[in-house]
Amino acid sequence: MKDKNNYIYGLHSVLEALEAGRDVDKIFLRGSLTGQAVDKLLKMARAQVIPVARVPLAKLDRITSRNHQGVIAVLSSVSYSRVHQVLPMLFEQGRTPFLVVLDGITDVRNFGAIARTCECAGVDAIVLPERGSVTVGADAMQASAGALNHIEVCREPNLLEALQFIADSGVKIVGTSDHNPVRYTAVDYTGPVALVLGSEHTGISAEVMELCNHHVMIPEYGHINSLNVSVATGVMVYEVVRQRHGDDPLGTDAK
Amino acid sequence: MKDKNNYIYGLHSVLEALEAGRDVDKIFLRGSLTGQAVDKLLKMARAQVIPVARVPLAKLDRITSRNHQGVIAVLSSVSYSRVHQVLPMLFEQGRTPFLVVLDGITDVRNFGAIARTCECAGVDAIVLPERGSVTVGADAMQASAGALNHIEVCREPNLLEALQFIADSGVKIVGTSDHNPVRYTAVDYTGPVALVLGSEHTGISAEVMELCNHHVMIPEYGHINSLNVSVATGVMVYEVVRQRHGDDPLGTDAK
Repeated sequence: MKDKNNYIYGLHSVLEALEAGRDVDKIFLRGSLTGQAVDKLLKMARAQVIPVARVPLAKLDRITSRNHQGVIAVLSSVSYSRVHQVLPMLFEQGRTPFLVVLDGITDVRNFGAIARTCECAGVDAIVLPERGSVTVGADAMQASAGALNHIEVCREPNLLEALQFIADSGVKIVGTSDHNPVRYTAVDYTGPVALVLGSEHTGISAEVMELCNHHVMIPEYGHINSLNVSVATGVMVYEVVRQRHGDDPLGTDAK
Repeated sequence: MKDKNNYIYGLHSVLEALEAGRDVDKIFLRGSLTGQAVDKLLKMARAQVIPVARVPLAKLDRITSRNHQGVIAVLSSVSYSRVHQVLPMLFEQGRTPFLVVLDGITDVRNFGAIARTCECAGVDAIVLPERGSVTVGADAMQASAGALNHIEVCREPNLLEALQFIADSGVKIVGTSDHNPVRYTAVDYTGPVALVLGSEHTGISAEVMELCNHHVMIPEYGHINSLNVSVATGVMVYEVVRQRHGDDPLGTDAK
Protein backbone atom coordinates (compact mmCIF):
# COMPACT_ATOMS: atom_id res chain seq x y z
CA MET A 1 0.00 0.00 0.00
CA LYS A 2 3.06 2.27 0.10
CA ASP A 3 2.48 5.36 -1.99
CA LYS A 4 5.44 6.22 -4.21
CA ASN A 5 5.08 9.84 -3.09
CA ASN A 6 6.28 8.71 0.32
CA TYR A 7 9.85 8.29 -0.91
CA ILE A 8 12.54 10.74 -1.87
CA TYR A 9 15.40 9.47 -4.03
CA GLY A 10 18.96 10.64 -4.46
CA LEU A 11 21.53 12.16 -2.15
CA HIS A 12 20.83 15.79 -2.94
CA SER A 13 17.05 15.50 -2.92
CA VAL A 14 17.21 13.85 0.48
CA LEU A 15 19.57 16.53 1.80
CA GLU A 16 17.20 19.21 0.54
CA ALA A 17 14.26 17.48 2.21
CA LEU A 18 16.15 17.40 5.51
CA GLU A 19 17.11 21.06 5.18
CA ALA A 20 13.49 21.94 4.43
CA GLY A 21 12.50 20.23 7.67
CA ARG A 22 10.34 17.59 5.99
CA ASP A 23 9.35 14.75 8.29
CA VAL A 24 11.48 11.79 7.35
CA ASP A 25 10.84 8.43 8.99
CA LYS A 26 13.95 6.59 7.91
CA ILE A 27 16.81 6.79 5.44
CA PHE A 28 18.16 3.83 3.48
CA LEU A 29 21.81 4.27 2.49
CA ARG A 30 23.82 1.99 0.24
CA GLY A 31 26.33 0.18 2.44
CA SER A 32 29.45 1.34 0.62
CA LEU A 33 28.45 4.97 0.06
CA THR A 34 30.84 7.56 1.56
CA GLY A 35 31.89 11.15 0.95
CA GLN A 36 31.38 14.65 2.29
CA ALA A 37 27.71 14.85 1.28
CA VAL A 38 27.05 11.51 2.94
CA ASP A 39 28.74 12.74 6.13
CA LYS A 40 26.53 15.84 6.02
CA LEU A 41 23.45 13.68 5.58
CA LEU A 42 24.43 11.42 8.48
CA LYS A 43 25.01 14.46 10.70
CA MET A 44 21.65 16.00 9.80
CA ALA A 45 19.86 12.70 10.29
CA ARG A 46 21.44 12.34 13.71
CA ALA A 47 20.41 15.87 14.68
CA GLN A 48 16.83 15.21 13.57
CA VAL A 49 16.72 11.75 15.20
CA ILE A 50 16.08 9.92 11.94
CA PRO A 51 17.29 6.30 11.80
CA VAL A 52 19.70 5.55 8.95
CA ALA A 53 19.97 1.96 7.71
CA ARG A 54 22.98 0.84 5.67
CA VAL A 55 21.63 -1.68 3.16
CA PRO A 56 22.86 -3.56 0.11
CA LEU A 57 22.19 -2.10 -3.36
CA ALA A 58 19.65 -4.86 -4.08
CA LYS A 59 17.38 -3.64 -1.28
CA LEU A 60 17.35 -0.11 -2.68
CA ASP A 61 16.64 -1.46 -6.15
CA ARG A 62 13.67 -3.36 -4.77
CA ILE A 63 12.19 -0.13 -3.39
CA THR A 64 12.44 1.75 -6.68
CA SER A 65 13.58 1.35 -10.26
CA ARG A 66 14.44 5.05 -10.36
CA ASN A 67 17.96 6.45 -10.15
CA HIS A 68 18.27 6.53 -6.35
CA GLN A 69 22.08 7.04 -6.32
CA GLY A 70 22.28 4.90 -3.19
CA VAL A 71 19.99 7.04 -1.01
CA ILE A 72 16.26 6.71 -0.33
CA ALA A 73 14.36 8.63 2.34
CA VAL A 74 11.00 7.37 3.59
CA LEU A 75 8.75 10.35 4.25
CA SER A 76 6.56 10.30 7.27
CA SER A 77 2.81 10.55 6.91
CA VAL A 78 2.58 12.27 10.25
CA SER A 79 4.49 15.06 11.94
CA TYR A 80 6.23 13.85 15.04
CA SER A 81 6.37 15.78 18.29
CA ARG A 82 8.40 15.30 21.43
CA VAL A 83 7.05 14.67 24.92
CA HIS A 84 8.97 17.61 26.40
CA GLN A 85 7.13 19.90 23.99
CA VAL A 86 3.67 18.34 24.20
CA LEU A 87 3.33 17.66 27.92
CA PRO A 88 3.97 21.21 29.24
CA MET A 89 1.57 22.52 26.60
CA LEU A 90 -1.17 20.17 27.84
CA PHE A 91 -0.71 21.38 31.41
CA GLU A 92 -0.76 25.01 30.24
CA GLN A 93 -4.03 24.36 28.42
CA GLY A 94 -5.49 23.16 31.71
CA ARG A 95 -5.91 19.62 30.46
CA THR A 96 -5.38 16.51 32.56
CA PRO A 97 -2.75 14.82 30.38
CA PHE A 98 -3.57 11.35 29.08
CA LEU A 99 -0.68 9.65 27.27
CA VAL A 100 -0.30 6.19 25.78
CA VAL A 101 3.27 4.91 25.59
CA LEU A 102 3.96 2.00 23.22
CA ASP A 103 7.10 0.02 24.03
CA GLY A 104 8.11 -2.12 21.07
CA ILE A 105 4.91 -2.28 19.03
CA THR A 106 6.02 -3.23 15.51
CA ASP A 107 2.81 -4.50 13.87
CA VAL A 108 1.35 -1.78 11.68
CA ARG A 109 -2.25 -3.02 11.94
CA ASN A 110 -2.09 -3.13 15.71
CA PHE A 111 -0.54 0.32 15.81
CA GLY A 112 -3.22 1.66 13.47
CA ALA A 113 -6.00 0.23 15.63
CA ILE A 114 -4.36 1.66 18.75
CA ALA A 115 -4.06 5.12 17.16
CA ARG A 116 -7.74 4.91 16.20
CA THR A 117 -8.75 3.93 19.73
CA CYS A 118 -6.64 6.68 21.29
CA GLU A 119 -8.09 9.31 18.95
CA CYS A 120 -11.65 8.17 19.74
CA ALA A 121 -11.05 8.10 23.49
CA GLY A 122 -9.50 11.55 23.61
CA VAL A 123 -5.92 10.48 24.40
CA ASP A 124 -3.64 13.53 24.10
CA ALA A 125 -0.57 11.87 22.61
CA ILE A 126 0.98 8.54 21.69
CA VAL A 127 4.64 8.13 22.69
CA LEU A 128 6.92 5.80 20.71
CA PRO A 129 10.61 5.01 20.95
CA GLU A 130 12.49 5.94 17.80
CA ARG A 131 14.01 2.47 17.46
CA GLY A 132 12.34 -0.92 17.58
CA SER A 133 8.99 0.59 16.81
CA VAL A 134 6.53 0.69 13.98
CA THR A 135 7.19 3.09 11.07
CA VAL A 136 4.36 5.59 11.00
CA GLY A 137 3.93 5.66 7.23
CA ALA A 138 1.14 5.25 4.75
CA ASP A 139 0.26 1.75 5.98
CA ALA A 140 -0.15 2.91 9.57
CA MET A 141 -2.17 5.91 8.41
CA GLN A 142 -4.53 3.62 6.54
CA ALA A 143 -4.80 1.14 9.41
CA SER A 144 -5.64 4.04 11.71
CA ALA A 145 -8.54 5.10 9.46
CA GLY A 146 -7.01 8.58 9.38
CA ALA A 147 -6.79 8.91 13.16
CA LEU A 148 -3.08 9.69 12.84
CA ASN A 149 -4.04 13.01 11.24
CA HIS A 150 -5.69 14.01 14.49
CA ILE A 151 -3.51 12.70 17.28
CA GLU A 152 -0.08 13.83 18.42
CA VAL A 153 2.66 11.22 18.03
CA CYS A 154 5.86 11.75 20.03
CA ARG A 155 8.85 9.86 18.73
CA GLU A 156 11.55 9.68 21.36
CA PRO A 157 15.22 8.89 20.77
CA ASN A 158 15.44 7.74 24.38
CA LEU A 159 12.22 6.30 25.76
CA LEU A 160 13.58 6.02 29.31
CA GLU A 161 14.47 9.71 29.38
CA ALA A 162 11.05 10.56 28.01
CA LEU A 163 9.38 8.45 30.71
CA GLN A 164 11.54 10.09 33.36
CA PHE A 165 10.40 13.49 32.06
CA ILE A 166 6.78 12.26 32.17
CA ALA A 167 7.24 11.05 35.76
CA ASP A 168 8.98 14.29 36.82
CA SER A 169 6.03 16.22 35.37
CA GLY A 170 3.74 14.58 37.89
CA VAL A 171 2.12 12.09 35.54
CA LYS A 172 1.27 8.65 36.96
CA ILE A 173 2.83 5.92 34.82
CA VAL A 174 0.91 2.64 34.67
CA GLY A 175 2.34 -0.41 32.94
CA THR A 176 0.67 -3.73 32.14
CA SER A 177 2.19 -7.01 33.20
CA ASP A 178 0.87 -10.55 33.26
CA HIS A 179 2.82 -11.30 36.40
CA ASN A 180 1.06 -8.85 38.62
CA PRO A 181 -1.86 -9.42 40.92
CA VAL A 182 -3.31 -5.88 40.69
CA ARG A 183 -6.28 -5.38 38.40
CA TYR A 184 -6.12 -2.45 35.98
CA THR A 185 -9.41 -1.22 37.46
CA ALA A 186 -7.84 -0.80 40.92
CA VAL A 187 -5.74 2.24 39.96
CA ASP A 188 -7.05 5.81 40.05
CA TYR A 189 -6.73 7.37 36.60
CA THR A 190 -8.48 10.65 37.29
CA GLY A 191 -5.20 12.61 37.47
CA PRO A 192 -2.53 12.97 34.77
CA VAL A 193 -1.76 9.48 33.50
CA ALA A 194 0.45 7.63 31.03
CA LEU A 195 -0.48 4.05 30.14
CA VAL A 196 2.41 1.89 28.96
CA LEU A 197 1.70 -1.05 26.67
CA GLY A 198 4.36 -3.49 25.53
CA SER A 199 4.71 -5.83 22.59
CA GLU A 200 2.63 -9.00 22.60
CA HIS A 201 5.70 -11.17 22.54
CA THR A 202 8.10 -9.56 24.96
CA GLY A 203 5.87 -7.23 26.99
CA ILE A 204 7.27 -4.07 28.52
CA SER A 205 11.05 -4.00 28.86
CA ALA A 206 12.49 -4.29 32.37
CA GLU A 207 13.95 -0.76 32.34
CA VAL A 208 10.62 0.74 31.32
CA MET A 209 8.82 -1.40 33.90
CA GLU A 210 11.01 0.09 36.63
CA LEU A 211 9.81 3.58 35.74
CA CYS A 212 6.14 2.60 36.12
CA ASN A 213 4.39 3.74 39.30
CA HIS A 214 1.89 0.90 39.02
CA HIS A 215 2.01 -2.51 37.41
CA VAL A 216 -1.42 -3.81 36.57
CA MET A 217 -2.97 -6.74 34.76
CA ILE A 218 -6.12 -7.26 32.77
CA PRO A 219 -7.72 -10.37 34.29
CA GLU A 220 -7.99 -13.38 31.99
CA TYR A 221 -10.14 -16.44 32.56
CA GLY A 222 -9.42 -18.65 29.54
CA HIS A 223 -6.72 -20.93 28.21
CA ILE A 224 -5.07 -18.54 25.78
CA ASN A 225 -4.15 -15.77 28.22
CA SER A 226 -3.04 -13.33 25.60
CA LEU A 227 -5.20 -10.42 24.60
CA ASN A 228 -4.35 -8.70 21.34
CA VAL A 229 -2.37 -5.56 22.25
CA SER A 230 -4.80 -3.23 20.47
CA VAL A 231 -7.70 -4.77 22.39
CA ALA A 232 -5.76 -4.52 25.67
CA THR A 233 -5.08 -0.85 24.93
CA GLY A 234 -8.78 -0.29 24.26
CA VAL A 235 -9.76 -1.91 27.55
CA MET A 236 -7.22 0.16 29.53
CA VAL A 237 -7.93 3.44 27.73
CA TYR A 238 -11.68 3.14 28.23
CA GLU A 239 -11.23 2.43 31.93
CA VAL A 240 -9.52 5.83 32.13
CA VAL A 241 -12.46 7.35 30.24
CA ARG A 242 -14.94 5.61 32.55
CA GLN A 243 -13.22 6.89 35.69
CA ARG A 244 -12.81 10.42 34.33
CA HIS A 245 -16.18 10.93 32.72
CA GLY A 246 -18.21 8.90 35.18
CA ASP A 247 -20.39 5.93 34.37
CA ASP A 248 -23.70 7.60 34.95
CA PRO A 249 -26.13 7.14 32.12
CA LEU A 250 -26.26 10.07 29.72
CA GLY A 251 -29.89 9.17 29.14
CA THR A 252 -32.47 7.48 31.27
CA ASP A 253 -33.54 4.32 29.44
CA ALA A 254 -30.71 2.14 30.73
CA LYS A 255 -30.68 -0.31 33.63
CA MET B 1 -2.95 -19.67 4.76
CA LYS B 2 -5.63 -22.16 3.80
CA ASP B 3 -4.47 -25.68 4.45
CA LYS B 4 -5.24 -28.07 1.62
CA ASN B 5 -6.51 -30.52 4.23
CA ASN B 6 -9.40 -28.16 4.79
CA TYR B 7 -11.01 -29.15 1.50
CA ILE B 8 -12.80 -32.25 0.33
CA TYR B 9 -13.12 -32.81 -3.42
CA GLY B 10 -15.61 -34.73 -5.50
CA LEU B 11 -19.31 -35.42 -5.18
CA HIS B 12 -19.05 -38.77 -3.42
CA SER B 13 -16.30 -37.73 -1.01
CA VAL B 14 -18.35 -34.70 0.01
CA LEU B 15 -21.49 -36.82 0.45
CA GLU B 16 -19.52 -39.23 2.63
CA ALA B 17 -18.19 -36.35 4.72
CA LEU B 18 -21.73 -35.03 5.27
CA GLU B 19 -22.96 -38.51 6.19
CA ALA B 20 -20.07 -38.88 8.64
CA GLY B 21 -21.18 -35.64 10.31
CA ARG B 22 -17.97 -33.79 9.53
CA ASP B 23 -18.17 -30.06 10.12
CA VAL B 24 -18.45 -28.43 6.73
CA ASP B 25 -18.37 -24.62 6.45
CA LYS B 26 -19.46 -24.24 2.87
CA ILE B 27 -19.89 -26.19 -0.35
CA PHE B 28 -18.92 -24.92 -3.80
CA LEU B 29 -20.93 -26.51 -6.59
CA ARG B 30 -20.37 -26.09 -10.30
CA GLY B 31 -23.26 -24.03 -11.64
CA SER B 32 -24.48 -26.54 -14.20
CA LEU B 33 -24.17 -29.68 -12.07
CA THR B 34 -27.43 -31.61 -11.62
CA GLY B 35 -28.53 -35.19 -10.92
CA GLN B 36 -29.80 -37.41 -8.12
CA ALA B 37 -26.55 -37.32 -6.13
CA VAL B 38 -26.51 -33.54 -6.38
CA ASP B 39 -30.10 -33.38 -5.11
CA LYS B 40 -29.11 -35.59 -2.20
CA LEU B 41 -26.16 -33.34 -1.42
CA LEU B 42 -28.35 -30.22 -1.53
CA LYS B 43 -30.86 -31.83 0.80
CA MET B 44 -28.23 -32.90 3.29
CA ALA B 45 -26.57 -29.49 3.17
CA ARG B 46 -29.93 -27.85 3.87
CA ALA B 47 -30.57 -30.17 6.80
CA GLN B 48 -27.15 -29.40 8.28
CA VAL B 49 -27.43 -25.66 7.58
CA ILE B 50 -24.41 -25.55 5.30
CA PRO B 51 -24.39 -22.79 2.66
CA VAL B 52 -24.05 -24.03 -0.92
CA ALA B 53 -22.65 -21.65 -3.54
CA ARG B 54 -23.17 -22.33 -7.25
CA VAL B 55 -19.98 -21.13 -8.95
CA PRO B 56 -18.40 -21.28 -12.41
CA LEU B 57 -15.93 -24.05 -13.18
CA ALA B 58 -13.05 -21.54 -13.22
CA LYS B 59 -13.56 -20.75 -9.55
CA LEU B 60 -13.37 -24.44 -8.59
CA ASP B 61 -10.24 -24.83 -10.72
CA ARG B 62 -8.65 -21.94 -8.86
CA ILE B 63 -9.21 -23.70 -5.53
CA THR B 64 -7.59 -26.95 -6.64
CA SER B 65 -5.93 -28.57 -9.62
CA ARG B 66 -7.26 -31.95 -8.48
CA ASN B 67 -10.19 -33.76 -10.03
CA HIS B 68 -12.97 -32.03 -8.08
CA GLN B 69 -15.82 -33.23 -10.36
CA GLY B 70 -17.61 -29.93 -9.79
CA VAL B 71 -17.88 -30.21 -5.98
CA ILE B 72 -15.61 -28.83 -3.25
CA ALA B 73 -16.46 -28.76 0.45
CA VAL B 74 -14.64 -26.40 2.82
CA LEU B 75 -14.12 -28.15 6.14
CA SER B 76 -14.59 -26.15 9.30
CA SER B 77 -11.72 -25.73 11.73
CA VAL B 78 -14.18 -25.53 14.59
CA SER B 79 -17.24 -27.47 15.59
CA TYR B 80 -20.31 -25.31 15.59
CA SER B 81 -22.99 -25.41 18.23
CA ARG B 82 -26.47 -23.89 18.39
CA VAL B 83 -27.74 -21.43 20.96
CA HIS B 84 -30.70 -23.62 21.90
CA GLN B 85 -28.25 -26.34 22.90
CA VAL B 86 -25.62 -24.19 24.59
CA LEU B 87 -27.74 -21.76 26.59
CA PRO B 88 -29.83 -24.28 28.61
CA MET B 89 -26.62 -26.15 29.37
CA LEU B 90 -25.02 -23.00 30.80
CA PHE B 91 -28.02 -22.41 33.07
CA GLU B 92 -27.94 -26.06 34.18
CA GLN B 93 -24.26 -25.69 35.06
CA GLY B 94 -25.20 -22.80 37.31
CA ARG B 95 -23.32 -20.30 35.20
CA THR B 96 -24.46 -16.74 34.52
CA PRO B 97 -24.50 -16.89 30.71
CA PHE B 98 -22.32 -14.40 28.87
CA LEU B 99 -22.81 -14.40 25.09
CA VAL B 100 -21.35 -12.24 22.34
CA VAL B 101 -23.48 -11.99 19.20
CA LEU B 102 -21.77 -10.80 16.01
CA ASP B 103 -24.12 -9.37 13.39
CA GLY B 104 -22.40 -9.18 10.03
CA ILE B 105 -18.71 -9.34 10.97
CA THR B 106 -16.92 -10.44 7.80
CA ASP B 107 -13.29 -9.49 8.44
CA VAL B 108 -11.33 -12.57 9.50
CA ARG B 109 -8.70 -10.65 11.48
CA ASN B 110 -11.35 -8.77 13.43
CA PHE B 111 -13.23 -11.99 14.10
CA GLY B 112 -10.03 -13.70 15.26
CA ALA B 113 -9.22 -10.86 17.64
CA ILE B 114 -12.80 -10.92 18.97
CA ALA B 115 -12.64 -14.69 19.55
CA ARG B 116 -9.36 -14.22 21.40
CA THR B 117 -10.82 -11.47 23.58
CA CYS B 118 -13.93 -13.52 24.34
CA GLU B 119 -11.88 -16.57 25.29
CA CYS B 120 -9.65 -14.48 27.58
CA ALA B 121 -12.59 -12.75 29.24
CA GLY B 122 -14.49 -15.96 29.90
CA VAL B 123 -17.33 -15.41 27.43
CA ASP B 124 -19.38 -18.62 27.17
CA ALA B 125 -20.19 -18.55 23.46
CA ILE B 126 -19.98 -16.47 20.30
CA VAL B 127 -23.15 -16.42 18.20
CA LEU B 128 -22.96 -15.85 14.43
CA PRO B 129 -25.56 -15.83 11.69
CA GLU B 130 -24.95 -18.54 9.12
CA ARG B 131 -25.08 -16.06 6.25
CA GLY B 132 -23.26 -12.77 5.80
CA SER B 133 -20.69 -13.71 8.36
CA VAL B 134 -17.06 -14.66 8.48
CA THR B 135 -16.09 -18.24 7.59
CA VAL B 136 -14.55 -19.82 10.65
CA GLY B 137 -11.71 -21.58 8.86
CA ALA B 138 -7.96 -21.86 9.16
CA ASP B 139 -7.45 -18.10 8.75
CA ALA B 140 -9.82 -17.28 11.59
CA MET B 141 -8.24 -19.98 13.75
CA GLN B 142 -4.82 -18.43 13.19
CA ALA B 143 -6.07 -14.88 13.78
CA SER B 144 -7.63 -16.07 17.04
CA ALA B 145 -4.27 -17.45 18.25
CA GLY B 146 -6.02 -20.77 18.85
CA ALA B 147 -8.80 -19.28 20.97
CA LEU B 148 -11.38 -20.88 18.66
CA ASN B 149 -10.30 -24.27 20.00
CA HIS B 150 -11.55 -23.24 23.41
CA ILE B 151 -14.69 -21.22 22.86
CA GLU B 152 -18.13 -22.34 21.73
CA VAL B 153 -19.26 -20.87 18.40
CA CYS B 154 -22.98 -21.03 17.63
CA ARG B 155 -23.83 -20.67 13.96
CA GLU B 156 -27.48 -19.81 13.53
CA PRO B 157 -29.53 -20.20 10.35
CA ASN B 158 -31.86 -17.52 11.67
CA LEU B 159 -30.21 -14.96 13.92
CA LEU B 160 -33.51 -13.30 14.84
CA GLU B 161 -34.97 -16.60 16.06
CA ALA B 162 -31.78 -17.26 18.01
CA LEU B 163 -32.00 -13.83 19.64
CA GLN B 164 -35.66 -14.39 20.45
CA PHE B 165 -34.67 -17.66 22.13
CA ILE B 166 -31.94 -15.82 24.04
CA ALA B 167 -34.43 -13.16 25.15
CA ASP B 168 -37.04 -15.79 26.13
CA SER B 169 -34.39 -17.51 28.25
CA GLY B 170 -34.11 -14.42 30.42
CA VAL B 171 -30.88 -13.10 28.99
CA LYS B 172 -30.51 -9.31 28.72
CA ILE B 173 -29.61 -8.33 25.15
CA VAL B 174 -27.47 -5.22 24.80
CA GLY B 175 -26.67 -3.74 21.39
CA THR B 176 -24.24 -0.96 20.49
CA SER B 177 -25.35 2.03 18.48
CA ASP B 178 -23.72 5.36 17.71
CA HIS B 179 -27.08 7.08 17.80
CA ASN B 180 -27.84 6.43 21.40
CA PRO B 181 -27.21 8.64 24.40
CA VAL B 182 -26.77 5.82 26.95
CA ARG B 183 -23.22 4.89 27.92
CA TYR B 184 -22.32 1.21 27.85
CA THR B 185 -21.24 1.55 31.48
CA ALA B 186 -24.77 2.52 32.57
CA VAL B 187 -26.24 -0.95 32.08
CA ASP B 188 -26.13 -3.69 34.73
CA TYR B 189 -24.34 -6.73 33.31
CA THR B 190 -24.25 -8.84 36.46
CA GLY B 191 -27.10 -11.10 35.29
CA PRO B 192 -27.24 -13.25 32.14
CA VAL B 193 -26.21 -11.06 29.23
CA ALA B 194 -25.73 -11.11 25.46
CA LEU B 195 -23.71 -8.29 23.87
CA VAL B 196 -24.52 -7.62 20.21
CA LEU B 197 -21.86 -6.07 18.00
CA GLY B 198 -22.45 -5.09 14.39
CA SER B 199 -20.24 -4.57 11.40
CA GLU B 200 -18.12 -1.44 11.30
CA HIS B 201 -19.80 -0.27 8.15
CA THR B 202 -23.46 -0.97 8.66
CA GLY B 203 -23.74 -1.51 12.41
CA ILE B 204 -26.42 -3.77 13.83
CA SER B 205 -29.34 -4.45 11.51
CA ALA B 206 -32.67 -2.80 12.36
CA GLU B 207 -34.42 -6.14 13.05
CA VAL B 208 -31.67 -7.21 15.45
CA MET B 209 -31.71 -3.78 17.08
CA GLU B 210 -35.41 -4.21 17.85
CA LEU B 211 -34.68 -7.35 19.84
CA CYS B 212 -32.15 -5.58 22.05
CA ASN B 213 -33.29 -4.65 25.57
CA HIS B 214 -30.73 -1.85 25.73
CA HIS B 215 -29.02 0.25 23.12
CA VAL B 216 -25.75 1.68 24.34
CA MET B 217 -22.84 3.64 22.98
CA ILE B 218 -19.14 3.77 23.73
CA PRO B 219 -18.39 7.48 24.18
CA GLU B 220 -16.03 9.00 21.62
CA TYR B 221 -14.26 12.33 21.92
CA GLY B 222 -12.27 12.60 18.70
CA HIS B 223 -12.81 13.36 15.03
CA ILE B 224 -12.85 9.82 13.69
CA ASN B 225 -15.71 8.44 15.77
CA SER B 226 -15.24 4.88 14.72
CA LEU B 227 -13.64 2.35 17.02
CA ASN B 228 -12.40 -0.85 15.44
CA VAL B 229 -15.06 -3.50 16.14
CA SER B 230 -12.63 -5.85 17.89
CA VAL B 231 -11.55 -3.00 20.18
CA ALA B 232 -15.19 -2.05 20.83
CA THR B 233 -15.93 -5.67 21.72
CA GLY B 234 -12.97 -5.70 24.11
CA VAL B 235 -14.17 -2.54 25.84
CA MET B 236 -17.72 -3.88 26.22
CA VAL B 237 -16.70 -7.38 27.27
CA TYR B 238 -14.31 -6.12 29.94
CA GLU B 239 -16.98 -3.82 31.36
CA VAL B 240 -19.03 -6.98 31.96
CA VAL B 241 -15.98 -8.57 33.61
CA ARG B 242 -15.43 -5.47 35.75
CA GLN B 243 -19.03 -5.44 36.96
CA ARG B 244 -19.13 -9.17 37.61
CA HIS B 245 -15.76 -9.68 39.23
CA GLY B 246 -15.54 -6.36 41.01
CA ASP B 247 -12.85 -3.77 40.62
CA ASP B 248 -11.26 -4.23 43.99
CA PRO B 249 -7.53 -4.66 43.83
CA LEU B 250 -6.40 -8.27 43.98
CA GLY B 251 -3.23 -7.04 45.66
CA THR B 252 -2.43 -4.04 47.79
CA ASP B 253 0.16 -2.00 45.89
CA ALA B 254 -2.28 -0.11 43.69
CA LYS B 255 -3.71 3.36 44.11
